[in-house]
Amino acid sequence: MIHPVLLCGGSGTRLWPLSRKSYPKQFARLMGDESLFQASARRLSGEGFAAPLIVTGDPFRFIVTEQLAQTRQAPQGILIEPEGRNTAPAVLAAALWLAESDEDALMLVAPSDHVIPDAAAFRAAATAATPRAKAGDLVTFGITPDRAETGYGYLELAKGADAAADTPQSLARFVEKPDEARAREMVADGNFLWNAGIFLFTAGAVLDAYRAHAPAMLDAVGRALQGASCDLGFTRLDAGPWVEAEDTSIDYAIMEKADNLAVMPYAAGWSDLGGWDAVWMESGPDDQGNVCSDHATAISCEDTLLRSETPGLELVGIGLKDMIAIAMNDAVLVAHKSQAQRVKEAVTALKARGASQAVQLPRDYRPWGWYESLAIGGRFQVKRIVVNPGAALSLQSHHHRSEHWIVVEGTARVTVGDEVKLLTENQSVYIPLGAVHRMENPGKLPMVLIEVQTGSYLGEDDIIRYEDVYARD
Amino acid sequence: MIHPVLLCGGSGTRLWPLSRKSYPKQFARLMGDESLFQASARRLSGEGFAAPLIVTGDPFRFIVTEQLAQTRQAPQGILIEPEGRNTAPAVLAAALWLAESDEDALMLVAPSDHVIPDAAAFRAAATAATPRAKAGDLVTFGITPDRAETGYGYLELAKGADAAADTPQSLARFVEKPDEARAREMVADGNFLWNAGIFLFTAGAVLDAYRAHAPAMLDAVGRALQGASCDLGFTRLDAGPWVEAEDTSIDYAIMEKADNLAVMPYAAGWSDLGGWDAVWMESGPDDQGNVCSDHATAISCEDTLLRSETPGLELVGIGLKDMIAIAMNDAVLVAHKSQAQRVKEAVTALKARGASQAVQLPRDYRPWGWYESLAIGGRFQVKRIVVNPGAALSLQSHHHRSEHWIVVEGTARVTVGDEVKLLTENQSVYIPLGAVHRMENPGKLPMVLIEVQTGSYLGEDDIIRYEDVYARD
Repeated sequence: MIHPVLLCGGSGTRLWPLSRKSYPKQFARLMGDESLFQASARRLSGEGFAAPLIVTGDPFRFIVTEQLAQTRQAPQGILIEPEGRNTAPAVLAAALWLAESDEDALMLVAPSDHVIPDAAAFRAAATAATPRAKAGDLVTFGITPDRAETGYGYLELAKGADAAADTPQSLARFVEKPDEARAREMVADGNFLWNAGIFLFTAGAVLDAYRAHAPAMLDAVGRALQGASCDLGFTRLDAGPWVEAEDTSIDYAIMEKADNLAVMPYAAGWSDLGGWDAVWMESGPDDQGNVCSDHATAISCEDTLLRSETPGLELVGIGLKDMIAIAMNDAVLVAHKSQAQRVKEAVTALKARGASQAVQLPRDYRPWGWYESLAIGGRFQVKRIVVNPGAALSLQSHHHRSEHWIVVEGTARVTVGDEVKLLTENQSVYIPLGAVHRMENPGKLPMVLIEVQTGSYLGEDDIIRYEDVYARD
Repeated sequence: MIHPVLLCGGSGTRLWPLSRKSYPKQFARLMGDESLFQASARRLSGEGFAAPLIVTGDPFRFIVTEQLAQTRQAPQGILIEPEGRNTAPAVLAAALWLAESDEDALMLVAPSDHVIPDAAAFRAAATAATPRAKAGDLVTFGITPDRAETGYGYLELAKGADAAADTPQSLARFVEKPDEARAREMVADGNFLWNAGIFLFTAGAVLDAYRAHAPAMLDAVGRALQGASCDLGFTRLDAGPWVEAEDTSIDYAIMEKADNLAVMPYAAGWSDLGGWDAVWMESGPDDQGNVCSDHATAISCEDTLLRSETPGLELVGIGLKDMIAIAMNDAVLVAHKSQAQRVKEAVTALKARGASQAVQLPRDYRPWGWYESLAIGGRFQVKRIVVNPGAALSLQSHHHRSEHWIVVEGTARVTVGDEVKLLTENQSVYIPLGAVHRMENPGKLPMVLIEVQTGSYLGEDDIIRYEDVYARD
């Protein structure tokens, strides 16, 4: 039995505007109908795989549960990092969590924002690596390089090893991100593989390595897990000891120091989608080299990526060569493909002038569902609010605004003052300024409600919460 | 006294997505805070100018009145073309209309979608051309060329004429759009000016020319004006005779045949904004050659036009050279500047697959104001509706939908069945399916209302009109 450990606390900016701090890359539908996270969970499921253990950040916990529910998967646990501290503490927390029930538990640690098109081949590789991991070695997956990439670290195999084998091979050493000349040498040499950050080991073996090479981290993360609080199925690590753990990668913390390492070669396709150029490449360009989403039209374009990411938004490119255009209804990126790695500069520029698009999607995900603003005026705002089945917003009131609620899908249970009533499609209720109120979805389908606010101040912080099932202030 | 005749019935596609069939270029804010039409009307106003006579199409009549009201101008008349038939019938209708009160009325005929930055210089040129026009000549304005443009026709001055004079000169002949070699020759020669389609003549003089060179058109348009109906200040030409008039330009119909022609040279700046490349050029590129609107950010770009045309939509360009990106929340255009003339292909492509963005803006202008859809679901739609002061929607009912109305700005007078009531900000009303209802703005400020529709069919054609001040079915 292999326990998938999916790391999804990261929040990169290289795929802005689709990936934002509030809704990062792993949760976006970058390839096909599933998010990268959903595809990762599905890839590591089926015979021989336990339910996944998720390590993520507090802002993403309800995105995780909602996305797993959509694909009808249930996690064995969700560990909440009080803050992101790179992969070393995250993997350690997962190992400690699994070791509580089984020291010999086999862990397959994987980022959840990579693309691995051939799921069956990947599962076969994981299975082939199992004996070596069970024997106590730390197995890292090495990707057969198809170009002299300077953006990845490399794994140098031991003399006599076979980089094309379908069984784990011995590792000589880790090689940090090279310059282009060195990358070309390594690819030509043939004895080097890309370091994909995917690992297979037993909880006991990796804990031994932390004990030997990162004892302070073992101590801190151990206390963060002992002090963890559990609510709604989440295991919230204790922030006090957690922040004592060094902010570093598992490679630096233990892999580069351990001597019981092996490499499982993998040649069936992999990408970390580290930029829009990679998305273009992995999406299968057509005969002209173009990749167009629905609602994107290329006229006399070559080697160009055109993506419309908002329903009903038409994107047209004319006479483009080696270009990237990503269109959303609140933000549009147009970049030369050779400059794809500079997208983070766009985020920095927008942050500098206070544009919320730098970090936030128009849709705001909450424990109970999500909302988005449809229109904002001087003294009014219109929102679409979607409440998940069984979910409830907090009991609250506002000092500066009144609200009109109109249910347009599903059924709402609405509290206003002392009164509680059920509203269904096409029914409405008025919440006067100052009235204590709550919205719940008692049904089995999502409930959609249009909220029209009027008042002199419409900020999200004009809220007094009286009761909240999600324990927010 | 000069009577400005502003032609604004055209609907080009070269500035899509900002300019669409439903809201063409002349009404868009392409340069500064006014539309090109508003700027044209303002340019031809003040001492020596009568109120403008407008010639436009039926779909644009309320855009015309609203835009003139915004700039506090009143037209002397608005002629409605039953369909667009190019400039010859339009100018003829205006001449006949003016001649009814004064055969000697001086007409300054101008397209309303051009940019002429120096309004005072243009008025001075018009004044300088007046004596020659009063003497019975047809004066056409000739623009001093600053490049070998192949997109315009040229005017060849008579031998001995002075292309830099500030008085009308004699014309040798019209020259059709040239190839590039010929364009370069003409610009080098110095005796050629661009034909801008701007004319000054008396109504009587131009009617004589029509009588001599286009008698059938004079007859047809004469009957179209005699049969015109007048409502709400619009003069609707009679469609039957109107469509008998040849669909052609005034240049072809009379100017190229007349012998009483003169040219008024004009050197103080002019552009027909015939494409996004021209918009870029006329907008005053910065030191890097870039033109960026509000909410547009250029990172390492050169000679690039970036325009965000929707409030709250951020556009970022990275590493672009000679590019154009126009972002709206329902359509985005990205084109190489050298391909700017191919924008109409985008419109054709979108039309082919039935995308409404090809021809319609999200905002739909109506006689009483405008509306836009904020959200559409399976069985609901949310609209923002803005009703002008004093305006009223038709008395109507629907078979398939109920409506919730919430007033968020201003005051509404609402009829539902037999009841009439006033609603102000933060008040709402429910319109049950089948109920006869009407919305009016009795106030002095625009009234803004959020409408939430629910029902099985939400098309605009589910409407039964009982009474309509705008005489619609």
